[in-house]
Amino acid sequence: MRAKVGLEKAGPFLPVIENEAGQSPVLLVCEHASNALPSAWGNLGLTHEQTRAHIAWDPGALGLARGLAARLDATLIHAPVSRLIYDLNRAPDMPGAMPTRSEVYDIPGNAAISLAERLARTQAVYLPWANGLHNLIAARIAAGRRPTIITIHSFTPVYHGKPRSVEFGIIHDANPTLAHAILAASGASGLNARLNEPYSAADDVTHTLRLHATPYGLANAMLEVRNDLIATPTAEAAMADRLVPVLTAALRAQERAA
Amino acid sequence: MRAKVGLEKAGPFLPVIENEAGQSPVLLVCEHASNALPSAWGNLGLTHEQTRAHIAWDPGALGLARGLAARLDATLIHAPVSRLIYDLNRAPDMPGAMPTRSEVYDIPGNAAISLAERLARTQAVYLPWANGLHNLIAARIAAGRRPTIITIHSFTPVYHGKPRSVEFGIIHDANPTLAHAILAASGASGLNARLNEPYSAADDVTHTLRLHATPYGLANAMLEVRNDLIATPTAEAAMADRLVPVLTAALRAQERAA
Repeated sequence: MRAKVGLEKAGPFLPVIENEAGQSPVLLVCEHASNALPSAWGNLGLTHEQTRAHIAWDPGALGLARGLAARLDATLIHAPVSRLIYDLNRAPDMPGAMPTRSEVYDIPGNAAISLAERLARTQAVYLPWANGLHNLIAARIAAGRRPTIITIHSFTPVYHGKPRSVEFGIIHDANPTLAHAILAASGASGLNARLNEPYSAADDVTHTLRLHATPYGLANAMLEVRNDLIATPTAEAAMADRLVPVLTAALRAQERAA
Repeated sequence: MRAKVGLEKAGPFLPVIENEAGQSPVLLVCEHASNALPSAWGNLGLTHEQTRAHIAWDPGALGLARGLAARLDATLIHAPVSRLIYDLNRAPDMPGAMPTRSEVYDIPGNAAISLAERLARTQAVYLPWANGLHNLIAARIAAGRRPTIITIHSFTPVYHGKPRSVEFGIIHDANPTLAHAILAASGASGLNARLNEPYSAADDVTHTLRLHATPYGLANAMLEVRNDLIATPTAEAAMADRLVPVLTAALRAQERAA
């Protein structure tokens, strides 16, 4: 169960970039795309079923993000490793970066992480991701194509036993402009859309936006879709069809305001 | 004069890291340490004298930063390339990143930079620097040693013909706590110290703080010393002697407040 970080398979784990030539200003980011547990870390003491549950990744998020990327002609960057090894939407010293507990599950392999192991995971997973994303963003800015950063997440319909009625959450950090525009445009989707639900920046869930969008003054928002609505490839595609008009209208409104 | 960016000598230009094992929480950053013009870019159409002037670098800043690093036992990271190629304290789309004019001098080699050239310099100079600095900061955070980011600059005593009376400028971005503590402690130095002079965040001079310190909530400040006060190695050392008690007192005040 203890990390064998000396193994070659312990990284670096580079982000996966799809449709890099995409012409949209939107850059889609999916930090919780994968439930892969590299062999260096074993199974963290979890059952096969647990490693397939929402604690290990955001089910449906990658499929939805791919659907949006195809329809918008946007570049997509996504994580190659489970958030149980390193949650890429957290700074290295946040408790959620390598969680000891996720919702109702203990994560035995994360129960007693040494500083050396925290450093090793940061260097193997977090930094290759963060620097890879930075390379993409800075290159676009230099080339005169300031990207709009939209992160794609999913959330569980029942959390700590409580059902959630929100279907589409739109979360902002320091700059709420794009989030407000997406909320304003979301009526046409028929989804129960809410601002800063089921999480908000106060829950430390906006690290990606803070690190990659805010310092460059880039428009940004974090989207959360309830995962029972994107549980199959067909449902993911249908959700992409519903959200594309929302995003397109929001981007247009933002351009007009700029 | 046109960049020969295909040459191997066109980068990547990695940051220089000194005293990496330093035990101080302070991480010293010197973005304008060097006036080196890599052969790929020729001399940008400048005279030898101009490439030695303050437009190409911050004279004395590296010597002062080294003096502070030695006295504080702090790690120092500094730039290997002149800010006329890429000003590392600017985002890629800021006019100052590859300035066409600096104070009273035109920079012929920067007069008509294409987007391709802007991208090439960003990838050769800015990204290796920014990602190298990020590697250092994130590793310290992961290892339980949150750094305090202090950037070291120098400014010219006469600007556009006007003499400047300020000797020691302390500049902050979003979080003014450390800057205020340094100002409060600066009386003992005998220097004419001022907050947010001769520049402030409104002049877009705090990119390093915004990109590297603010997203992680790290204490940070930018220091500016008038370059006639650090014009020789002896003067640099004397200034380090004057500033170390100021910084030590400010860090102590900040710890007490935390």
